[in-house]
This record gives sequence, C-alpha cells and structure tokens, in this order.
Amino acid sequence: MVKVYNKYKKGRVKHMEHNVAEITKVINKVLQEMGAVETQPANTGKEIPIGVSNRHIHLTQADVETLFGKGYELTKLKDLSQPGQYACKETLTIVGPSLRPIENVRVLGPLRPESQVEISRTDSFTLKVKPPVRESGKISGSAPITIIGPKGVVTLKEGCIIANRHIHMSLEDGAKYGVKDNEYVTVDACGERKTRFFDVQVRVSDKFRLEMHLDTDDANAAGLKNGSKVSIVK
Amino acid sequence: MVKVYNKYKKGRVKHMEHNVAEITKVINKVLQEMGAVETQPANTGKEIPIGVSNRHIHLTQADVETLFGKGYELTKLKDLSQPGQYACKETLTIVGPSLRPIENVRVLGPLRPESQVEISRTDSFTLKVKPPVRESGKISGSAPITIIGPKGVVTLKEGCIIANRHIHMSLEDGAKYGVKDNEYVTVDACGERKTRFFDVQVRVSDKFRLEMHLDTDDANAAGLKNGSKVSIVK
Repeated sequence: MVKVYNKYKKGRVKHMEHNVAEITKVINKVLQEMGAVETQPANTGKEIPIGVSNRHIHLTQADVETLFGKGYELTKLKDLSQPGQYACKETLTIVGPSLRPIENVRVLGPLRPESQVEISRTDSFTLKVKPPVRESGKISGSAPITIIGPKGVVTLKEGCIIANRHIHMSLEDGAKYGVKDNEYVTVDACGERKTRFFDVQVRVSDKFRLEMHLDTDDANAAGLKNGSKVSIVK
Repeated sequence: MVKVYNKYKKGRVKHMEHNVAEITKVINKVLQEMGAVETQPANTGKEIPIGVSNRHIHLTQADVETLFGKGYELTKLKDLSQPGQYACKETLTIVGPSLRPIENVRVLGPLRPESQVEISRTDSFTLKVKPPVRESGKISGSAPITIIGPKGVVTLKEGCIIANRHIHMSLEDGAKYGVKDNEYVTVDACGERKTRFFDVQVRVSDKFRLEMHLDTDDANAAGLKNGSKVSIVK
C-alpha cells in the first residue's frame, strides 16, 4: 500500500498541490469507497433542466412539397425552447418493414438540408427498423424509413436515427459549468428511478439555451419529464 | 493531504491490510479520478444477464374465470427463466381512463393470490394511469386498471404497477457476489447508450436463477436485450 502510494505521490503530487478541489473530491471518493461504494447519484449543483423529445420529423422543402403538395409551406404551431426551433401544425405517419404505422408524428421547423426522422428504440421495434444512435444531422448510413403525407409519400434511403443524449448550452453556461463544445459528460438523474447517463454530448453555442434532451425511453426509464432537473457529474 | 491520509490510515489500515481486493479497487478509483472523473461504467466482473420484462398480467383463479369463463384454466406456453414461472397462451387487453386499449398483454403463471398488471411508464401515458414503481406483489395503494377478456371484464381497484429494477439470484450467486436478500445495489450497463441503474433490489432465494429484470423503458433506454450482460458496481 505504502509503496503504491509513494509511487502515486511522486508522479502526481505537484499536480495535486495545485488542485485542492480535485484532491478533496478524490478523498471523498476514497472514504465513500471504504464504506459503501457510491450508491446514490451525485448532486454537483451543476443543474440542467430536461426537455423530453418525442418522435419527430425534420424536412427539406422538396420533401414538404412531395408530402403536402407543390408550393406548400409548414405552419408554425409553437416555439420550442431552443431559439429558432419550432413545432409545426403538421403531423405525418411513418412506416417501416413491419407495416405497423406510427401516426401523428410531429414535424419540427425550420426546414433542413436533409430530411430526418428521430424515433426511440421502443418505436424501432414497432416499425422494425434498426436506426443507429446518432447526433442530429449525422444521418450518413442511418436507417431507411417511409414517411406518409396527405399528398404523397417519401422513402428516405437513410435518415432514421435514435438521437444521442445531449445537452444544449449557451456560451455563458458553458463557461459557468466548465465544459466545451462537443465535450462528453456524465449526468445523474434523481427521478423516480435513479439513473446515471454516460457519454452525454454537450453542444455549446450562442444559438442554444441550457437544456438536456432525452428521448422518451431515457425519460420514462428514469421517471423524468419536461423541466425535471439533472446534474452534470463531470 | 497528509493529515487526512494519516487519519484515514489510522482508522482503516487494520481493515485494509486484510482486504487487498478492496484496496486495489480504491487505488484504481483514485487513479481514475486523477485522470478524468469516472466517465465510463465500471466492469467489476460481477456480471448478470438481463431479462427484459414486457408488460404482463398475473391473475387469481377467480379473475381467470371472470375473464375466460367458469372453470377455465390457464395453458402454459413456455417456461420463463425463473424456476416455476411461465408464459401462458392467453393474452388480454388492458384499458385505463384514456380509453386507448393496449392489446395482446401476456398472462404469466402460476396463479397469484392477487391479480397484478405490470406496465412501463411509456404504457402508463398511453393508458393515462399513474402506477407507482414497486416490487412485484406489493400492490397496496397502486393504480386501478381494467382488464378485458373474451368472457368478461375485471376492474382492479389497485394492482397496476411499474416494476422496480431487480435482480434474482440463487443462494450460491448471492454468496459469490457478496450480496444479501433485499439488499440494494448499483448496476452499470455498457449497451449502445451506457447507463448506471441505482437502487436495484436484489432477491436471493433457492427458487431464483441469476438474472436482472428490466422493463422495456430501461432496456430500450440503455440499448439492452435479453441476455445482454450488466455489472454490479456494488
């Protein structure tokens, strides 16, 4: 023990002397460990409100016109929490190889350069599609899916994904929480079933507002709803 | 640092000298901590296979007869992994205040002293019922729900729950993994979306076989399926 500690001390002590907060955290962890291992989620004070993302569709103008008719324009229903993003009046039906359609899937605006359908893994079993877990917009090689509209049908060769767990942050919140754009963090949730989410992508931009987006599987697993608070562990 | 370490050493060193595995775990944790805080799930070697529980129904003989007719007996379809438990040929429809029925809900045997409907939180939104998260069998004060059968309807005043996360273990596995009946542990899952489940109840009995039961919300959130392996952190 002493030998290992000395070796550890030698290599690390310089760094450690300059990092009291880090050391305190380590010692807390060691002490916890000797009692019972961390069996409760952390509350670090770095709180984030939850936004639950139900299945939804982003469309190109070309696909809007195939689905709703030539010259058709989407109608805003209400603004979403991220600046510039909105829910549209329009909903569509999606279908996959199971031929069991899912109806009333909300279209979100604004228009995108590529159409994309975001579903949960639960939905993927209903549809019998195999979408990868992805960051929104990264659809290369993702699953095919068919979208049915009142005036036409669009079959995407790729574009169906399960969204990754991610956090939107303003530049100010990025600085406040000490995280950079595209960093991955760990998040603890104290809902009715306590859960830690690993590998949560952080997106920091002056276009964003502080919010963690979870799909309905993650939210329902942990017992979280819109406005529930979670905590960044790191 | 030295002062805290000495205090820590004084009280703990006797215990530590007799517990090399524990010390190794602590040191590993400290070293991990000095790099980046534990941002990946632990693999402790204490592996458990997953069994995903879809929504299902347990029935009393009286309720079987109301739903299927006087004198009716359930028919075994196939054995489940827990000894003595089986899926029945019979399925039923459940409905709540939304009046949107969920069809083809599997009945499980054997008969129980009280009827019980286990659903996911996702299902609870479809049905508009508010079941508590509970251990199976603990239905006092749980949600009401209606079960529709070919010969009759049963409305349970209570009996609808969301199952808690739990692990079944034989006496041998309980000893091997160092956990007691009714202990609560923390479990890490390295599926497509890495997740830590806190507050997982362990049931140790000579009637059980090693398996962690998750409902479809938890399984789909973490990207786990039947036979996926998870790891007890403690």
